[in-house]
Amino acid sequence: MAGYVRDEVADAEIERQRALYGPLADAVRELVDATIRTTVADEEIAAATAQVEALTARLRAEQLDGPYGVRYSASGRGRPWGNPVVGLRNAMSPPVVVERESTGRAWSDFHLGAAYEGPPGLVHGGVSALILDQLLGEATGAGGKPGMTATLTLRYRRATPLGDLRAEAWIERSEGIRTWAKGQLSDAEGVTVEAEGLFILPRWARERMAEQDRQEPTPKYFE
Amino acid sequence: MAGYVRDEVADAEIERQRALYGPLADAVRELVDATIRTTVADEEIAAATAQVEALTARLRAEQLDGPYGVRYSASGRGRPWGNPVVGLRNAMSPPVVVERESTGRAWSDFHLGAAYEGPPGLVHGGVSALILDQLLGEATGAGGKPGMTATLTLRYRRATPLGDLRAEAWIERSEGIRTWAKGQLSDAEGVTVEAEGLFILPRWARERMAEQDRQEPTPKYFE
Repeated sequence: MAGYVRDEVADAEIERQRALYGPLADAVRELVDATIRTTVADEEIAAATAQVEALTARLRAEQLDGPYGVRYSASGRGRPWGNPVVGLRNAMSPPVVVERESTGRAWSDFHLGAAYEGPPGLVHGGVSALILDQLLGEATGAGGKPGMTATLTLRYRRATPLGDLRAEAWIERSEGIRTWAKGQLSDAEGVTVEAEGLFILPRWARERMAEQDRQEPTPKYFE
Repeated sequence: MAGYVRDEVADAEIERQRALYGPLADAVRELVDATIRTTVADEEIAAATAQVEALTARLRAEQLDGPYGVRYSASGRGRPWGNPVVGLRNAMSPPVVVERESTGRAWSDFHLGAAYEGPPGLVHGGVSALILDQLLGEATGAGGKPGMTATLTLRYRRATPLGDLRAEAWIERSEGIRTWAKGQLSDAEGVTVEAEGLFILPRWARERMAEQDRQEPTPKYFE
């Protein structure tokens, strides 16, 4: 399937790109927050709008025809940089920086601010679902059982406040191409949302993996 | 609960604010997309980063102390402008513009681009969950049965391509403070994701609604 691009970008070059694009996305993320919260005068808002439009035009002078896709290199390092949860270049991502264990566990500590608000002061229920879907997918990938989400169930035990949060996920069991994972979102007081999901390795990914030299790394990211 | 602020903003003033803040968020949304897709020279990226930081500082010269919350006015019009799915001022929202029927239906046609990508060329499974959670909540609110998400289950029938999509939701049944809703996400070829959820009106909202003059509108947005 197009979009999982194996390029031959060296690790040093990846670090260079990370140091270039990470700060841009960080700056845009702050701008997203300020756009929600600003109370400056109308003329300032209008002037800012014009400046953002001009800046966007400069960045669009040369750009990819479509979305970023997922790149990976010879060392097996994936770069899902457009991803809305973990993407280094996506200002919509908190970003969630995921830690992984090859036993099939993944976790992350992160902060959610104004852009993730549903009920006043609380995390939007769908944002919790978005982040947990990613974490469950990360856990299955970390355990060598990557797949796309087939079903996902969320139980909201209590409201999740905006602020510092932790998400974690783990593989429950696996049968062939099917893997069941569980996870949870927590604040300092304990669990707020529980999730469980079934992840299935799609046929196109199985075919692609079968075609390749088994020594060659395959993408771990399906979410 | 703090954050549901009834202000006395007149409809004409709301329209004026909409015409001011909508274009700023639209511009920032385009910048988010360009930040993912740009291939301009390194110096241009660095210059853009500095400009975005300067612009953000200007907007932050006066700003709300915290997140936007949900405002509503005497006419009953809610303004969940910080919401990550439907928020007029949130550049992370596509935005989804929701149509509603008082029978308890809600639907929207919208477009998802690079910022919503999970697997290459496809909508992130968690983004589908985020949008469907909002739509189910909108349907319950439209039918006079607002609530916060208690459980949400998603079935991914096939991959959802980035592009033009439709989400719709409806109330299945309601018993007191509990309302069950269903919904689906579709592309031109048909349904890609099905959702069902249980929504419960929280105690603080019931108390708040009981305290108020019944002639006075109450907020319809809990998501």
